[in-house]
Amino acid sequence: WKGDFFPGIPQIKYEGPSTKNPLAYRWYNAEEEILGKKMKDWFRFSVAFWHTFRGTGGDPFGAATKYWPWEDGTNSVSMAKRRMRANFEFLKKLGVDWWCFHDRDIAPDGNSLEESNNNLDEVIELAKELQKGSKIKPLWGTAQLFLHPRYMHGGATSSEVAVYAYAAAQVKKAMEVTHYLGGENYVFWGGREGYQTLLNTDMGRELDHLARFFEAAVAYKKKIGFNGTLLIEPKPQEPTKHQYDWDAATAANFLRKYGLIDEFKLNIECNHATLSGHTCHHELETARLNGLLGNIDANTGDAQTGWDTDQFLTDVGEATMVMTSVIRNGGIAPGGFNFDAKLRRESTDVEDLFIAHISGMDTMARGLRNAVKILEEGSLSGLVQKRYSSWDSELGKQIEEGKADFEYLEKKAKEFGEPKVPSAKQELAEMIFQSSM
Amino acid sequence: WKGDFFPGIPQIKYEGPSTKNPLAYRWYNAEEEILGKKMKDWFRFSVAFWHTFRGTGGDPFGAATKYWPWEDGTNSVSMAKRRMRANFEFLKKLGVDWWCFHDRDIAPDGNSLEESNNNLDEVIELAKELQKGSKIKPLWGTAQLFLHPRYMHGGATSSEVAVYAYAAAQVKKAMEVTHYLGGENYVFWGGREGYQTLLNTDMGRELDHLARFFEAAVAYKKKIGFNGTLLIEPKPQEPTKHQYDWDAATAANFLRKYGLIDEFKLNIECNHATLSGHTCHHELETARLNGLLGNIDANTGDAQTGWDTDQFLTDVGEATMVMTSVIRNGGIAPGGFNFDAKLRRESTDVEDLFIAHISGMDTMARGLRNAVKILEEGSLSGLVQKRYSSWDSELGKQIEEGKADFEYLEKKAKEFGEPKVPSAKQELAEMIFQSSM
Amino acid sequence: WKGDFFPGIPQIKYEGPSTKNPLAYRWYNAEEEILGKKMKDWFRFSVAFWHTFRGTGGDPFGAATKYWPWEDGTNSVSMAKRRMRANFEFLKKLGVDWWCFHDRDIAPDGNSLEESNNNLDEVIELAKELQKGSKIKPLWGTAQLFLHPRYMHGGATSSEVAVYAYAAAQVKKAMEVTHYLGGENYVFWGGREGYQTLLNTDMGRELDHLARFFEAAVAYKKKIGFNGTLLIEPKPQEPTKHQYDWDAATAANFLRKYGLIDEFKLNIECNHATLSGHTCHHELETARLNGLLGNIDANTGDAQTGWDTDQFLTDVGEATMVMTSVIRNGGIAPGGFNFDAKLRRESTDVEDLFIAHISGMDTMARGLRNAVKILEEGSLSGLVQKRYSSWDSELGKQIEEGKADFEYLEKKAKEFGEPKVPSAKQELAEMIFQSSM
Amino acid sequence: WKGDFFPGIPQIKYEGPSTKNPLAYRWYNAEEEILGKKMKDWFRFSVAFWHTFRGTGGDPFGAATKYWPWEDGTNSVSMAKRRMRANFEFLKKLGVDWWCFHDRDIAPDGNSLEESNNNLDEVIELAKELQKGSKIKPLWGTAQLFLHPRYMHGGATSSEVAVYAYAAAQVKKAMEVTHYLGGENYVFWGGREGYQTLLNTDMGRELDHLARFFEAAVAYKKKIGFNGTLLIEPKPQEPTKHQYDWDAATAANFLRKYGLIDEFKLNIECNHATLSGHTCHHELETARLNGLLGNIDANTGDAQTGWDTDQFLTDVGEATMVMTSVIRNGGIAPGGFNFDAKLRRESTDVEDLFIAHISGMDTMARGLRNAVKILEEGSLSGLVQKRYSSWDSELGKQIEEGKADFEYLEKKAKEFGEPKVPSAKQELAEMIFQSSM
Repeated sequence: WKGDFFPGIPQIKYEGPSTKNPLAYRWYNAEEEILGKKMKDWFRFSVAFWHTFRGTGGDPFGAATKYWPWEDGTNSVSMAKRRMRANFEFLKKLGVDWWCFHDRDIAPDGNSLEESNNNLDEVIELAKELQKGSKIKPLWGTAQLFLHPRYMHGGATSSEVAVYAYAAAQVKKAMEVTHYLGGENYVFWGGREGYQTLLNTDMGRELDHLARFFEAAVAYKKKIGFNGTLLIEPKPQEPTKHQYDWDAATAANFLRKYGLIDEFKLNIECNHATLSGHTCHHELETARLNGLLGNIDANTGDAQTGWDTDQFLTDVGEATMVMTSVIRNGGIAPGGFNFDAKLRRESTDVEDLFIAHISGMDTMARGLRNAVKILEEGSLSGLVQKRYSSWDSELGKQIEEGKADFEYLEKKAKEFGEPKVPSAKQELAEMIFQSSM
Repeated sequence: WKGDFFPGIPQIKYEGPSTKNPLAYRWYNAEEEILGKKMKDWFRFSVAFWHTFRGTGGDPFGAATKYWPWEDGTNSVSMAKRRMRANFEFLKKLGVDWWCFHDRDIAPDGNSLEESNNNLDEVIELAKELQKGSKIKPLWGTAQLFLHPRYMHGGATSSEVAVYAYAAAQVKKAMEVTHYLGGENYVFWGGREGYQTLLNTDMGRELDHLARFFEAAVAYKKKIGFNGTLLIEPKPQEPTKHQYDWDAATAANFLRKYGLIDEFKLNIECNHATLSGHTCHHELETARLNGLLGNIDANTGDAQTGWDTDQFLTDVGEATMVMTSVIRNGGIAPGGFNFDAKLRRESTDVEDLFIAHISGMDTMARGLRNAVKILEEGSLSGLVQKRYSSWDSELGKQIEEGKADFEYLEKKAKEFGEPKVPSAKQELAEMIFQSSM
Repeated sequence: WKGDFFPGIPQIKYEGPSTKNPLAYRWYNAEEEILGKKMKDWFRFSVAFWHTFRGTGGDPFGAATKYWPWEDGTNSVSMAKRRMRANFEFLKKLGVDWWCFHDRDIAPDGNSLEESNNNLDEVIELAKELQKGSKIKPLWGTAQLFLHPRYMHGGATSSEVAVYAYAAAQVKKAMEVTHYLGGENYVFWGGREGYQTLLNTDMGRELDHLARFFEAAVAYKKKIGFNGTLLIEPKPQEPTKHQYDWDAATAANFLRKYGLIDEFKLNIECNHATLSGHTCHHELETARLNGLLGNIDANTGDAQTGWDTDQFLTDVGEATMVMTSVIRNGGIAPGGFNFDAKLRRESTDVEDLFIAHISGMDTMARGLRNAVKILEEGSLSGLVQKRYSSWDSELGKQIEEGKADFEYLEKKAKEFGEPKVPSAKQELAEMIFQSSM
Repeated sequence: WKGDFFPGIPQIKYEGPSTKNPLAYRWYNAEEEILGKKMKDWFRFSVAFWHTFRGTGGDPFGAATKYWPWEDGTNSVSMAKRRMRANFEFLKKLGVDWWCFHDRDIAPDGNSLEESNNNLDEVIELAKELQKGSKIKPLWGTAQLFLHPRYMHGGATSSEVAVYAYAAAQVKKAMEVTHYLGGENYVFWGGREGYQTLLNTDMGRELDHLARFFEAAVAYKKKIGFNGTLLIEPKPQEPTKHQYDWDAATAANFLRKYGLIDEFKLNIECNHATLSGHTCHHELETARLNGLLGNIDANTGDAQTGWDTDQFLTDVGEATMVMTSVIRNGGIAPGGFNFDAKLRRESTDVEDLFIAHISGMDTMARGLRNAVKILEEGSLSGLVQKRYSSWDSELGKQIEEGKADFEYLEKKAKEFGEPKVPSAKQELAEMIFQSSM
């Protein structure tokens, strides 16, 4: 393979909202400062290697549809290296500084753990070299513990102890290479850590094993001096009927129960949020209020389908909500926005890869601009502040400080008589929200 | 009102599976011993006063359809007392020793907190008298913090501090009367403790208020010497878009976060479980594994509808799963099975109240018989034991004791080579489960 | 009751997108011409009497929360007339020329059919008088066949023949008064025409009865010279488990099966669309392609709840999709956009009624502006045209004309060899769609 | 490959409910007569070649898990033939006389249509030979128009005319071979006949193309003298966001609209039914009432997951409902029960294939026995008959004959006064239903 991977695609630049050019940014202007921070630093956008370079377009009823010109049909180390070079060209043309990977996406599985590790090392070495002289590095790395049949009953929660050991070995290596490449986070998505039926499952024992696994991961992280954040990525189900990290609150309960709450944060994915019956904004706020908001997998689902569609988010209202949470969190670093989103099966042009990312980045950028506008305009926050103003009273303070017992409260209730309960002004809040866009 | 409330209805007796009599038990035989415990002690069945005596058949699109002969159309204290007598006749004819109530179901709301409390006292006094000489007492009591418009923004999580105080006063009183009647538990269902939109909601502040409220409840319980269990009843949504006690794991996380984990248990409702995307069995097991299984609201939903239908459970397979969890938990006392289930809007005969409860009790009894049969037969538990047998090895033990770090596990993984991963035998497990019924 | 109903509310005017005034239109400019038609003629906005004037804020777990100052707590004819005057003042201040009603919303149920009809006549007479000198008239009328307990098993599909007769009498009268007031459509929403369980239901017989009922309605419409459109409003469920008019396709099948396809159109409601698993746009297109798009119930649901929330639509993307269908349909007259939407339970200020309608109208107006912009800009329609361009070939024509049999097609397939299948460009389509807003 | 494919598996025999042998029937007794028909003739069970012999255990996140001993890792014609012999051994050991197939499941895709057809012919010839001397034949055949990337935009509804031609050629051939093997039905499942987004779709044109395609199929069927039933298999979505044959009513509307209603029947799949928001029983009844019940894809989904899990049905209550519809339909022939169900990904033993089918067959057999018992016992049908008894009156007859206009009905309504509306007895119906099992 010689020359450019994306010969017809220019460096993607900001051209503003009026451009007709699909290969330009309308709202994302990397260096523009917003609320004292550059746009690129608000987002820390990352390309997901697996979707963008290993996505085949296959689905449960269909074979692969993508035939990228640089692919030679093999799963060899040399093909893996060529693909890695494509990744870096893609990142640079897009103007993105981070990428995310699973170990087995970037390098082929070998006939043994040793061989797999060697394959990985070879590709990592190239990635390290390609990173040189650029700001590019992994937002996070992770181990793929779901594709291989050995993980069919789980990795850390497998009914087979040898699989647990294998999973540990794989995470150990993936953590090492993430650290080596300067990765800032390490992610656990437990796609197989769950069950298909409780009839054949010892859920209590499996959850204990998962806790032991995470404890060992924390210990190893410290041992090798990896300072990146460990992230759990909640998802309710698919491929399992029930995944143990169902949603943010479930993951938080697990972390608290096993004394791991200070060692992990959460990677919230919007499509996972809606599959679990919540809005993305709800999951972000739940993570934030539990002190666990660590990273965002920026994508969206289809409101009428019951599986993970991993689409690029193009809903500006949703993006505005997401950015409201991020602003409240004071930003997302050392996490970022990973595009855990894939081209539709039917989108088969190389340029579609760029269009999709540009569209997703522009939508988030528009969300940031709107969130700031709403914040600065102040009428929505004013509405909320007014709504809770009775709590800024003496009694409110006493309650919040834990100084109001039931007898005292009963006495106050009798003094007050029937409370006045004003309108919640939801329609006004919605009007303000929508009008600000 | 003179004489019997249910003149045509006999004392309901066990007649065995072959009876054609709809007013008899086919599977529930109260005094029969199963696994060393009488059936009535396994279940501790309870009638829900609100559904059975205050259910109108109304729905969001329809007015009341029930006109019980003893109702006079008023919401007076004398009507409340007549209704309470009907309740006790119902319990006795059914052969059930427990009942559950909200304060405002059993006695009318007054023009002030004082008047409401007086109304409640008058009805409670009668209930106390009716309990005498019988084994009947409340399984649990609770305060109705959702019907009155003052609670439209919540009780403990209201945006109005005066409503919080009012809610506290109401819970204080409801806890007192539950205690006075010998109630064994006290339940918190936060139907309005949640939000309709995050746009106008300060979720963090509301959650803190909820925690303060629960802390005050715990303190007051201890102060008055009430030894009953405090129970939180998770539900994902309805009437709010999002209820803070979404499911068992969410409630557990809340309790852990605020240091309340040892003070509460959970009241799991099957219909709430399915609305939150879980099976009832899953929620029971989650509660159990977190040490929180306290009570069961025995009902079921409709698998194709997205709201709480509160139907009597008649699915024997589901009942078998539920009873499997209860057996594992060593029983459910001091909790029990409360029939949080209502007649269909279109079921308007007095006898329908009996038929529904008999059907529900028989289904649970059948579930218990099946669960015991499966347990004693042993092939399902054998399948599970065999499935996890590799964990009974030396390495399994080391891992479970937290003695296996990543380096050791990697060494073992290399020694093992590719793990053998046997079939999970789900179809066999399903065959065993179904064949045992 | 004297004087104004809405004393503090001004006539609502168009002030453009930059206004901060919540009581002004930002995008809806009634007289502005768009694509050769005034905005008001594109929409033909209508206020739903039941939600706006009879909505109590009650829900399955809560009592009424609204206390409008003009209400006196009675359900008398004189109160009904006062409410009707409030309706006309509301319509005029909002600048809306249509309203929709159920018979029993606008006049109280009497002790007999005759008395109910008399009550209705009295209120209708006032409405007729209030309409004089204005352009105001009903967009549609309908009969309320779901609230009263007599309809608990259905109206036209009741298991009781006397209820069928009663329903017929009620529809007869409702059709007469709609005609008398100059109403342009008549709607059938079968909230109770369905079942709760098939175990006790003769679905075949019920569907036949429904067809007989519709046939009689058609005959009566013609007899009295009412030229308005008859509309069926599909909804999948709630209050029944299954409603016979599940969605647009189901209703169309019913109409075709019983030979009624030319006598009815459909009233598509967005919240009903999403409850049935479709987008609103899909239902509108399905209705349109079946020649059945007659009216739109403009509202929206909550993507995470399984019941009808009937919210005012504030999602601009959704509104743009809706208006795309309306433009393709050449407008919606003699139908219109009825706001089958209600204030949230917690919104209790009189001004909230205005804010909600303004917000809903502005959202639709923004949708129209966007749809026109996308249309005129042309790149989205160009993308679609290009996508299907192979069908503009000779072979495409032959197939579309029914002249290509399997043998001919096989011959062509062999000639062609493996077909080239280009990208569907979904991400580009989404980018164009979103960027145009 | 020499000798038996299933060496350790005996001929599966009926041993009755008390057997502990997982490789025996408990309730399915092929030759036993029930309601005048042998059990085998009630069911006409069929094995789905694709799931049983081509199912890999792969899922959207996981690679293949099944390694049947007779597979050699190739997709060659010789492997296809060996697999076909395994199929016949499987059918015989199970005692099943029908099988179903897609063209591309049983024979490998070639490099051209001609080559694919030749491959198919070669395998079909073997199947023909293996059928000889047995009663085995296809219940139905079909063409696989969803796996190959050429069909990514649909087959009959592809945006590419050449793909339409290719699909026609493929269906032509599949119909020929089905006919040649004595198949009794031919199925159309339009997995790709739908859309991912309306933004890039011309739905009206696509639906017209689909109708043209079906018309050509009908013509060709007649031309070659194939008397089998043509079946459409509704499914709401997956892989597409929206499939045109959404549910039974949608398919019926399509067939009516295009004048095809007399040429097709429906193949109802239980898992598709629940994905579309209906019970399986509802879809069967809808098909039956439209005269379209042609075949049943016997499987079930998971009530908590939003995708097609294609599990073997083991819920006896559900099976009883299904068989109630089949009895009402007077049987299902020339259709049957095809096990469109697959082993779980984690079930990897050869015996699991047998266990799963036995379990599914036994469940259906139990459903038949229960349905007959309920029917013969008569109390459930009595309840329904009584419920509708008012329709057996003179007025009921007049209405059903279309002789009661609105004026007459109004007159009757006034005569009747307020109708009496009795209880619907749902809880009694449920009690009867459950007790009969």
